[in-house]
Amino acid sequence: MTANKHQDSATPHYNALCAAFKQIHHFEHLRALGDWDQATMMPSGGSQARGDAMAELALHIHGLKTAPDLVDRLAAAGEEALSSEQVANLREMRYQTLQATALPGELVQQKTALTYACEHAWRQQRKDNDWQGFKPNLEQVIALVREEAQILGEAQQLSPYDALLNKFEPGTRTESLNQVFGEIRTWLPDMIKQVQAKQQSWPSAPVPHTSAAAQQALNLDVMTLLGFDFNQGRLDTSSHPFSGGMPGDVRITTRYDETDFITSLYSTIHEVGHARYEQGLPPKWRTQPVGLARSMAIHESQSLFFEMQLARSPAMIVLLTEKINQHLGTALTNQSLTHLVQRVTPGQIRVDADEVTYPCHIMLRFEAEKGLVDNSLQVADLPEFWDNQMQSLLGLSTKGDYRNGCMQDIHWPVGELGYFPSYSLGAMYAAQFKASMVKTLGDIDSLIQAGEMGQIMAWLEQHIWSQGSLLTTDALVTQVTGEVLNPVHFKHHLEQRYLHQW
Amino acid sequence: MTANKHQDSATPHYNALCAAFKQIHHFEHLRALGDWDQATMMPSGGSQARGDAMAELALHIHGLKTAPDLVDRLAAAGEEALSSEQVANLREMRYQTLQATALPGELVQQKTALTYACEHAWRQQRKDNDWQGFKPNLEQVIALVREEAQILGEAQQLSPYDALLNKFEPGTRTESLNQVFGEIRTWLPDMIKQVQAKQQSWPSAPVPHTSAAAQQALNLDVMTLLGFDFNQGRLDTSSHPFSGGMPGDVRITTRYDETDFITSLYSTIHEVGHARYEQGLPPKWRTQPVGLARSMAIHESQSLFFEMQLARSPAMIVLLTEKINQHLGTALTNQSLTHLVQRVTPGQIRVDADEVTYPCHIMLRFEAEKGLVDNSLQVADLPEFWDNQMQSLLGLSTKGDYRNGCMQDIHWPVGELGYFPSYSLGAMYAAQFKASMVKTLGDIDSLIQAGEMGQIMAWLEQHIWSQGSLLTTDALVTQVTGEVLNPVHFKHHLEQRYLHQW
Repeated sequence: MTANKHQDSATPHYNALCAAFKQIHHFEHLRALGDWDQATMMPSGGSQARGDAMAELALHIHGLKTAPDLVDRLAAAGEEALSSEQVANLREMRYQTLQATALPGELVQQKTALTYACEHAWRQQRKDNDWQGFKPNLEQVIALVREEAQILGEAQQLSPYDALLNKFEPGTRTESLNQVFGEIRTWLPDMIKQVQAKQQSWPSAPVPHTSAAAQQALNLDVMTLLGFDFNQGRLDTSSHPFSGGMPGDVRITTRYDETDFITSLYSTIHEVGHARYEQGLPPKWRTQPVGLARSMAIHESQSLFFEMQLARSPAMIVLLTEKINQHLGTALTNQSLTHLVQRVTPGQIRVDADEVTYPCHIMLRFEAEKGLVDNSLQVADLPEFWDNQMQSLLGLSTKGDYRNGCMQDIHWPVGELGYFPSYSLGAMYAAQFKASMVKTLGDIDSLIQAGEMGQIMAWLEQHIWSQGSLLTTDALVTQVTGEVLNPVHFKHHLEQRYLHQW
Repeated sequence: MTANKHQDSATPHYNALCAAFKQIHHFEHLRALGDWDQATMMPSGGSQARGDAMAELALHIHGLKTAPDLVDRLAAAGEEALSSEQVANLREMRYQTLQATALPGELVQQKTALTYACEHAWRQQRKDNDWQGFKPNLEQVIALVREEAQILGEAQQLSPYDALLNKFEPGTRTESLNQVFGEIRTWLPDMIKQVQAKQQSWPSAPVPHTSAAAQQALNLDVMTLLGFDFNQGRLDTSSHPFSGGMPGDVRITTRYDETDFITSLYSTIHEVGHARYEQGLPPKWRTQPVGLARSMAIHESQSLFFEMQLARSPAMIVLLTEKINQHLGTALTNQSLTHLVQRVTPGQIRVDADEVTYPCHIMLRFEAEKGLVDNSLQVADLPEFWDNQMQSLLGLSTKGDYRNGCMQDIHWPVGELGYFPSYSLGAMYAAQFKASMVKTLGDIDSLIQAGEMGQIMAWLEQHIWSQGSLLTTDALVTQVTGEVLNPVHFKHHLEQRYLHQW
């Protein structure tokens, strides 16, 4: 029985909800297409008309999700005799509807307009290191986000910041993040120093110049190696790499820099992780909320599994070195590629960070966001807060360098607070999944060497991808690993790779 | 005052209609994007989900166009004090709404399903020359089209075939087409023989092999020469060339065959004609029905103006020869390119026909369609009818060769009767516009030689493109040329180019 063929006459309300969410799914398909096209294909002259069309579409989808009939049926369907999968679908429907209905339309419109203006100005202000110009805009955005968080929290009996987290990571609470990040903070800064000391003897290895066309051929070849299904997706170019499209037609992008093929290659591998998750979601539930990826952190766990766990493992480095030399005409050794992709260097910019220093960037932002939302940190004090944290976590000063400090990310200008933790949660889940996988499949390196990468993919497909949103995040992680999030696996992973491996 | 800012309180119904059609326009934007992507970018695995999403979107647009409130306001707005442009917009709104409301939803669904199946089977049947397999499918489609034509005709006080013509060429009637094509038929078969005799001495000139990449560079360069605005459009590749997208973001396509750059180049030029029309539509009316291109024939008049009038003119052949040799590394002379693009050869396939023999293919189909719709021609008798017409018009036999006979076009399998005449009407309008243009600007060749192609474009923009649908087709053509459609200009054009030029 597929989700579209629920003709069980005993569940009329649930059936009607499935039909309504299938309709929403079709319009979401068009939204995904519009977003992808805008980033990859659309000429500049198309931007006004596209913006208008996408706003109309968003309004229509919002209208469908908040239709009174649908909201009424959500309660009534709870009384019907549903299978456990149907119950899960109903839970996800309720979650989506609540997110859509909780906020008054006026506030949504106000936020859209305000963040649009703030982001637009920020693009120039960041270039100009113009904190004084940016500050009042950000203050307005934060004030509105506080209001949003307040309303969302009241509707869900959550604290304001928990309500923001809940938008991206249903079920994740500030308290557990405090614990997790608090624990990491006890060992990470020291570990970074140890790794740096260990790597001091590494020769500096310049990245060879290579053409964009050759890099693209390399990327396509590596995508095939990683099982990307080109009948169900594409690779294109955009100014920021992303994974978009829809299950059955997943569109990933990368960018090309002739002086740095590593970034293009590894960002492509990262996006393949996202893409295989999407391509592997349960086809039976494709049009329903329960058929969607579990959360941003679980999504990130798959992309980081590919980018970090898999593509920086010794056996994979051997395979990649060969493909790089073949496509790019370079003469890398396994060791020189290792040095290029495993070097740990504290830096100011989050998106350029290696996997060891990356959590520091997230912990800083997590602390800042909590303060901004509960009013204990003011926007005016953000630069000083930022500098203190960077000093303590990575030993770097950002004084006066707003551009590479608190103005570096797009998230706050567009009003997306509560998102940053997902990145590090993803890295931790990836390590935890890997630890579980190794217990049944054995060492990943041996599998790759034996040409058995398919076993790794099948494990991910069975345990993560095909599960969609049937379980909550905690239930899924417990089912796969026997415990909820446990950062010790991430610590072991970093120790093993960066302190013990050589 | 722009169409979106009609805040005149004296015209509340008209204002509400503008808002409704603006909304429809936004969803049509998404439809155009979905269609373009499907033909150019979408991997095969995306086809089911895209089909479902596009069907949902079509249903939604149909719902918007037939909303009872909208239909009521169409009558009420007629009583309001409107400007002449607003009256024209209201006329186009009524036309669109009538096309959408006239047919019962069941019939539309039935036709969609039936033609989908017929087209799908036809793709294989055509390859197999399988007339016996195709015949019963086409019979079903024609029966349904008769029903559609009957209902559409009753709703508009038109004969059934006129109602089909009216879908593509508002205002065009069978009677005037009978006259026009009847007149052409008196001289065209003879002219074809004369041209062939004249061209007998032409040496056979093989088309040089050239790479797809070089052909693409050539196409892009020629597009720039023709004023295509790349900030408002793109060139991509698809299996059949087309022009799509939206004003402000016009997407044209071509295909590449290394043994035939001429087809790619001239089909690109053809699509640039369509694109410049779309790019030149009145920005003030962009979201409204009156801002759309006038009709399929006027659209085709612009593409054929570019492809035939302009790109086969002696001065343009000089420019193109130079660009071809530069990009493709060929050594064509102006004369050899002339021989490649002006050779007249009767053939069985419409889409491969030159501009002299092309109307024969259309006249045949026009006669067949009239008979199929008024029941005087049965599907079973179509092959014999086809063969007789091909013998009489072009002196060719198609006996037993259904694949290259009555099974060659996609139009009938998909149930689109009434469309074919637009192609030839376009060619005739193009010649008529050219004759008018020459009166004020002087000879086109002299303008091109003087580097004044911009004057040609400005003339088209002023007289055709910027007019959108403000006037009916007859009123537009009369305003531009002083008379309604007159095929004598087409005849003079062919005589001048193919009989007198050398």
